[in-house]
Amino acid sequence: MKTLEEYIESLKNLKPTAYMFGEKLEDPINHPRIRAGVNATGATYELANDKEYQHIFTTISPLTGERINRFTLPPGSIEDLVARVKINRILGGYVGTCHQRCTGLDCLCTLSIVTYDIDKKYGTHYSERFTEFLKYMQVNDLAGNASVTDVKGDRNLSPHEQDDKDMYLRVVDQTKEGIIVRGAKVHQTGSLSAHEIVVLPTRAMQKGDEDYALAFAVPSDTKGLIHVVGRNSLDTREIEGVDCGNFRYSKYCPTLIFDEVFVPWERVFMFKELEFAAEMVSRFSAFHRQSHGGCKSGKIDAMTGAALLMMEYNGTAKVGHHKEKVIDMIHTAETLYGCSLAASYEGKREPSGTFFIDPILANASKIHEGKEMSEVARLLIDISGGFVADLPSEKDFDNPQIGPLLKKYLKGTARVPVEMRVKMLRLVEKMAMESADTISDIHGGGSSAAHRLTLLRESDIDYKKECAKRLAGIE
Amino acid sequence: MKTLEEYIESLKNLKPTAYMFGEKLEDPINHPRIRAGVNATGATYELANDKEYQHIFTTISPLTGERINRFTLPPGSIEDLVARVKINRILGGYVGTCHQRCTGLDCLCTLSIVTYDIDKKYGTHYSERFTEFLKYMQVNDLAGNASVTDVKGDRNLSPHEQDDKDMYLRVVDQTKEGIIVRGAKVHQTGSLSAHEIVVLPTRAMQKGDEDYALAFAVPSDTKGLIHVVGRNSLDTREIEGVDCGNFRYSKYCPTLIFDEVFVPWERVFMFKELEFAAEMVSRFSAFHRQSHGGCKSGKIDAMTGAALLMMEYNGTAKVGHHKEKVIDMIHTAETLYGCSLAASYEGKREPSGTFFIDPILANASKIHEGKEMSEVARLLIDISGGFVADLPSEKDFDNPQIGPLLKKYLKGTARVPVEMRVKMLRLVEKMAMESADTISDIHGGGSSAAHRLTLLRESDIDYKKECAKRLAGIE
Amino acid sequence: MKTLEEYIESLKNLKPTAYMFGEKLEDPINHPRIRAGVNATGATYELANDKEYQHIFTTISPLTGERINRFTLPPGSIEDLVARVKINRILGGYVGTCHQRCTGLDCLCTLSIVTYDIDKKYGTHYSERFTEFLKYMQVNDLAGNASVTDVKGDRNLSPHEQDDKDMYLRVVDQTKEGIIVRGAKVHQTGSLSAHEIVVLPTRAMQKGDEDYALAFAVPSDTKGLIHVVGRNSLDTREIEGVDCGNFRYSKYCPTLIFDEVFVPWERVFMFKELEFAAEMVSRFSAFHRQSHGGCKSGKIDAMTGAALLMMEYNGTAKVGHHKEKVIDMIHTAETLYGCSLAASYEGKREPSGTFFIDPILANASKIHEGKEMSEVARLLIDISGGFVADLPSEKDFDNPQIGPLLKKYLKGTARVPVEMRVKMLRLVEKMAMESADTISDIHGGGSSAAHRLTLLRESDIDYKKECAKRLAGIE
Amino acid sequence: MKTLEEYIESLKNLKPTAYMFGEKLEDPINHPRIRAGVNATGATYELANDKEYQHIFTTISPLTGERINRFTLPPGSIEDLVARVKINRILGGYVGTCHQRCTGLDCLCTLSIVTYDIDKKYGTHYSERFTEFLKYMQVNDLAGNASVTDVKGDRNLSPHEQDDKDMYLRVVDQTKEGIIVRGAKVHQTGSLSAHEIVVLPTRAMQKGDEDYALAFAVPSDTKGLIHVVGRNSLDTREIEGVDCGNFRYSKYCPTLIFDEVFVPWERVFMFKELEFAAEMVSRFSAFHRQSHGGCKSGKIDAMTGAALLMMEYNGTAKVGHHKEKVIDMIHTAETLYGCSLAASYEGKREPSGTFFIDPILANASKIHEGKEMSEVARLLIDISGGFVADLPSEKDFDNPQIGPLLKKYLKGTARVPVEMRVKMLRLVEKMAMESADTISDIHGGGSSAAHRLTLLRESDIDYKKECAKRLAGIE
Repeated sequence: MKTLEEYIESLKNLKPTAYMFGEKLEDPINHPRIRAGVNATGATYELANDKEYQHIFTTISPLTGERINRFTLPPGSIEDLVARVKINRILGGYVGTCHQRCTGLDCLCTLSIVTYDIDKKYGTHYSERFTEFLKYMQVNDLAGNASVTDVKGDRNLSPHEQDDKDMYLRVVDQTKEGIIVRGAKVHQTGSLSAHEIVVLPTRAMQKGDEDYALAFAVPSDTKGLIHVVGRNSLDTREIEGVDCGNFRYSKYCPTLIFDEVFVPWERVFMFKELEFAAEMVSRFSAFHRQSHGGCKSGKIDAMTGAALLMMEYNGTAKVGHHKEKVIDMIHTAETLYGCSLAASYEGKREPSGTFFIDPILANASKIHEGKEMSEVARLLIDISGGFVADLPSEKDFDNPQIGPLLKKYLKGTARVPVEMRVKMLRLVEKMAMESADTISDIHGGGSSAAHRLTLLRESDIDYKKECAKRLAGIE
Repeated sequence: MKTLEEYIESLKNLKPTAYMFGEKLEDPINHPRIRAGVNATGATYELANDKEYQHIFTTISPLTGERINRFTLPPGSIEDLVARVKINRILGGYVGTCHQRCTGLDCLCTLSIVTYDIDKKYGTHYSERFTEFLKYMQVNDLAGNASVTDVKGDRNLSPHEQDDKDMYLRVVDQTKEGIIVRGAKVHQTGSLSAHEIVVLPTRAMQKGDEDYALAFAVPSDTKGLIHVVGRNSLDTREIEGVDCGNFRYSKYCPTLIFDEVFVPWERVFMFKELEFAAEMVSRFSAFHRQSHGGCKSGKIDAMTGAALLMMEYNGTAKVGHHKEKVIDMIHTAETLYGCSLAASYEGKREPSGTFFIDPILANASKIHEGKEMSEVARLLIDISGGFVADLPSEKDFDNPQIGPLLKKYLKGTARVPVEMRVKMLRLVEKMAMESADTISDIHGGGSSAAHRLTLLRESDIDYKKECAKRLAGIE
Repeated sequence: MKTLEEYIESLKNLKPTAYMFGEKLEDPINHPRIRAGVNATGATYELANDKEYQHIFTTISPLTGERINRFTLPPGSIEDLVARVKINRILGGYVGTCHQRCTGLDCLCTLSIVTYDIDKKYGTHYSERFTEFLKYMQVNDLAGNASVTDVKGDRNLSPHEQDDKDMYLRVVDQTKEGIIVRGAKVHQTGSLSAHEIVVLPTRAMQKGDEDYALAFAVPSDTKGLIHVVGRNSLDTREIEGVDCGNFRYSKYCPTLIFDEVFVPWERVFMFKELEFAAEMVSRFSAFHRQSHGGCKSGKIDAMTGAALLMMEYNGTAKVGHHKEKVIDMIHTAETLYGCSLAASYEGKREPSGTFFIDPILANASKIHEGKEMSEVARLLIDISGGFVADLPSEKDFDNPQIGPLLKKYLKGTARVPVEMRVKMLRLVEKMAMESADTISDIHGGGSSAAHRLTLLRESDIDYKKECAKRLAGIE
Repeated sequence: MKTLEEYIESLKNLKPTAYMFGEKLEDPINHPRIRAGVNATGATYELANDKEYQHIFTTISPLTGERINRFTLPPGSIEDLVARVKINRILGGYVGTCHQRCTGLDCLCTLSIVTYDIDKKYGTHYSERFTEFLKYMQVNDLAGNASVTDVKGDRNLSPHEQDDKDMYLRVVDQTKEGIIVRGAKVHQTGSLSAHEIVVLPTRAMQKGDEDYALAFAVPSDTKGLIHVVGRNSLDTREIEGVDCGNFRYSKYCPTLIFDEVFVPWERVFMFKELEFAAEMVSRFSAFHRQSHGGCKSGKIDAMTGAALLMMEYNGTAKVGHHKEKVIDMIHTAETLYGCSLAASYEGKREPSGTFFIDPILANASKIHEGKEMSEVARLLIDISGGFVADLPSEKDFDNPQIGPLLKKYLKGTARVPVEMRVKMLRLVEKMAMESADTISDIHGGGSSAAHRLTLLRESDIDYKKECAKRLAGIE
């Protein structure tokens, strides 16, 4: 397993093509905005090497017999499923934002199930290829990045019906050595912090969409792959080197353009098996929603801590309605966590040997996240006060004319140094108003409508009807 | 284990003192309103003898080595904790109301932990007495009823400060044979359907409250014990024998007056150990909130089934906003269930050997119940239509003048017999507007404020603060 | 104007055909359940003769020049629109339930607009007929009852497509003297408390539905009209004469069967003008939603008062979370009221001279009612305690054996007589769990989906888009 | 009245002391970030000169007899109160953010009432001074800025109990010419866009706080006054000149330090009249909450427009759940607006002749804002899609390598130019994630707890109790 330092070192060997603010990034890994994201992923390496946490972050691989980071392990037991949620919660509290390594794992989990199912039906050999890839990920302790969401063009049209056929990633050519793909995947959280980009389809496919029914993996610096790092609400803070709020960690989400990228056959895990596209995306989404139940409850831990400290610093620790708001925050955290844990404990073994979570309970968790995380942020802002919106800059505090005045006036209770209050307010701003992270509460793991429909589709509707009929005395 | 018939037979041997509408009930068990409640508890016997369910409703007693109904078993493992939730969910869907046997079990669970803890501290022998009592319950497969909530008088005053010292149940005399108690316990769901009344304190006690720090068990027909069956919103339906909605099952909640009741020493499980009163009630509440997470999600199963059938019968099965409402209903059910299951899987072994649930997750479930069950009822009413409020009586349908007209006009879609639609509307009325059952969503297991405070009290507040400090860069 | 006594006397002269529990009511007005409803409508007469209230309950009729009760006045000014909301709020607090006279007025308001519009288009003379009828209502100070909701059969089919053509009320024959109608209208709140039944269509009509495009008025005891009084959750309380909770007032909602009812032409206000059916129902609904904004906020006044008194009686008047719940109750009341008032102040004059409210704001009010009234009830129950579900009967309190014990044990704070606490608990049960009244929060004035769609349909969508385009810099 | 150009010209004559990012702003008005705020305030001048709007934005001053901008007019009639809400709604849609001129007006409204009340009690002459000041504001059409929120130090302590006595603004010296004040006011929205800073106390005062019971006005560039422009989430966008989202308008909120500022007596409107401090702040808050009911519903108009356009551009215009979300957005806008309008129509004349709004209804509006605006933002993000979080920069679109690729891939429906979609996504980011504006939903006009307590304090509690008692039959 890699240490944090080795992980960062390993990224330095990659030469991805990346742009930000209209300019090519010559050294992405050392760009402060990217580095803040890399640090967050780095925490998955750091804690796996930490005495306190390694027992839960690592386990023995059934493939290699070696100790591995759980972020390279498709779950082979209920215990593995549960560990996924628990390490995500720890990380959420540890980095206070998205750690960006879960999506890659969720792809590995998905492929370990679906490649087996495809092979069973079609006699293909995707599973073998995938297992080789998985072994490579485990042995080298690599971080993966899930490339799922296509740009989609007109949402009313299926892939092959679009005006521009590239609105969903597709195969444009194939040779003896492999395939050439074109298209773009968006909201690629941490794509420059990953060694490998793992691509899955983003929706169910129908006849005519064969060239889009596609899964594969490529290195994050493969030729033709372009990372365009988009903007988020606090994106210049790390660049300026002040007012970051979160001391070390942040998040960034590139748009990933596949401008004719070659994929060798041994890295192709699905091609043309139309009817498995839906299974790919639904398995992935279910795993990813389970992951969120962990990391977002962990992020609320940090937000709750910030709320409690703001109460101490402001002198409102005993105010009843503030306590009620803290309870609401905790309640949301425990609801996300509880439903996600239950989804894990109630998981089942798939034919491939991988364990799959209960999709109803995982989606129950995600629906709460999509609706309630913004409420958690609102409560945090309510408790913290108006300075979340307009706190003077650290540079103002350093200015000899106004700095002393600001330090005088921004003090809360006398016994807390003004610096602590200012730092905490800045952290609150980061956790409540940083868009790249907070908007994933709403859009991560698919749209809220998708989560909701899953509940209806996966529930045993007939059983429920039978309950009612029996009670009403209807034969 | 008893069959349903044996259970009912066994109740016939009891001669409890009971009143309803100002009159003494000579034969409570055959009174139709009480019988509807007895039937609900009877389902716990019925399903334990049903081939489909007995594997989960029964297990081997570590005390007796015999197969027992789980409703007499304090949990000795995670599996036992989880089974509690699952059988409650099944029962909720099976009876469509409260089955009324969980509270007795929740007392047994509590006593199995706390009598041990008291003995450890004081060298008393409560645990032995309790174990004898438990064996008796298991061997005879008896139903218990939790007697917890005192009448409380002025909520601002502790027990010994009240004007009338009997506002909390207390010992008024003691002899070599036992103690004499006086007071009243309220909201005693199903007290006439139980063989044994198990009494616990309802709150933390302080110096001066020694005579109130009290736990014991007495038969439900013991001398001096008076069951006054209060009114609920649909209480005359079973008595009239029409328009019951729920074909067989209902709920009733007597006020229980202990008018100088003798309790022999071997049935006294706590007396004067002040500081354990709080533990009694908090353990009981936690177990009871876990129980609710099962049975209430089961009740929502039946409500969801009714909603879906009403959509079919009314011709609105494809209406989008109705489907969204059904999804909201399912979401609430799964949230209650998920958090309650997680509370079980995350349970821990107590020194006595009994397993205790995670109280944060159990309370997270209960808070949702308290807030969202009335919303589930509202959604069910919204979907079903205005006839939930004013459906003509079955007697009207039987009237030769207006019956045929009503049958003509109350038909929904042509292909569904009008009788089915009418029965289902009546069931909806029962499940949405019957007060004895629906109000337990709000007040069962203690007040919502108590559930909320538990979250704050049991959470690791310091850990959360540390997360925030570290991220803010505060040493 | 009639006094309360004259109103009741006038009802005694009517001989309606009415059934309840499968039996013909020989003297409906003296049946205790009907009388409790009549009392509620009676309050509209009582307060119009009360010195404190007559200035707002009465005004001068522009038709007759005489002083009239506002419940017979289509609004001719903004002041009239506002008075509608304010008198409804007063009545809501005064009767603590539905007063049942608003629907008749809402029909008069609607007809005063739409008969004019039809005449203008078709040269018909409905407006003259209606004006005569209106004069008759005003001069005799009569109560009207809106007959709008058809039974509807299969909700997927339009009236003429139904298997049974009578699923919407229709003309089955016509003569020189008038028309013969057949069908049934449901949820006819207070139909036996009204002198006149005013019938409007319940939905938009299309080609083929001509015989259903129909509006008219008939006396409530006209031949062929059958009132079947359905069941509600507390319907036997008035009949038993105990445990009524609300001392004098209640609500009942018959199903109204038109079993070949003759309507003379001078009472026909629309017939066959298909395209005006939608306008009839949308105008009526808008007026009715405005009415609800008044009466339901008034009902919350009484519920809030009950909550505050329960806090005093229980000794919890200073408990912070109870106060917060009271604030939530008040907030809902003021939201319903505020939006309904604003809808009135922003009303506009129609071509007929009648003033019409702002439909967006009226529906904004109703959407809150549909969603939040059940929450208000939940909060009231939460504050009041578990006895809302299972309070012993007044008969129990009168019983010589258990009465004294109950009086001893059901006392709250020492300084409040137990009788007061018991009465208030019973009132809470009535206001929170009586179905005929509470379900109108959800279904009164049309379904919640209808209210919501109105917002989208009536809003100036293009203006909103222009705002956004301009700000985004899109030409 | 000033034109937009004259307004901007007039600001150029001011020489305020201002800092941002630790540096002194030599020419604040031409700093792009400040200018975006000035533009928003400028809209109040622009529309007052616009033919379409001048009838509602302007009126005749009863003081000067000249036509004035309503933003300098304390309301002298119900019509004036209503106009306040309506022009704020128009402005909210016009600038899509806070226009920053309402707070100054709300101070003028407050002072016109309270100076009169103080004079009446104490025979002081504040009212004359204030009237002169008001005339000056009207004649010169000046913008005022409310300076209310003190830094507060330890929230548990009153002003004179603080360790540092300057934690609330206070008089530190007084001379024949005037007073010298020291302290700081925070969250001073648009203080550099205003000509005059109007200072009111922020809380009720008690004995010992005399030097803090203080109201006055000073020019925004008076000596000793320092504006420190704090940071908000998108604050560098205007500075960079790209990715602004909102084409012209933005908001900024300085911290205002009064570093020994001299105020001549003719500008002092209260000094030492302790018991009127509470009235000052409660009047101001009530007026300000009424203002919010207008401007925030106007902002939702722009947000709703953006949501509808995103649906068109993405091809999801017909998706049912998106429509439901738009309806929720409209519903919130109309609720804020309806309650705020009703508060205005139900206003009352104060002894001074100024009209005051109904505080219950104004607070009912604000409570919805505080709770629901973040939900409106969430819905907008949900509808718009994940690019709200990570849209590439305009600079990326301009880059010759990746620009064409981005334009290809970020297209939604074929018939909408990609530029429009990108601009609208950027506007959505601005309206949903810009902190200076969105956090005022929560903290503007005082804390949510203050709004809630106002409901309880201002409601007629006794009337509500009487309603309940009468219905329960309690004498």
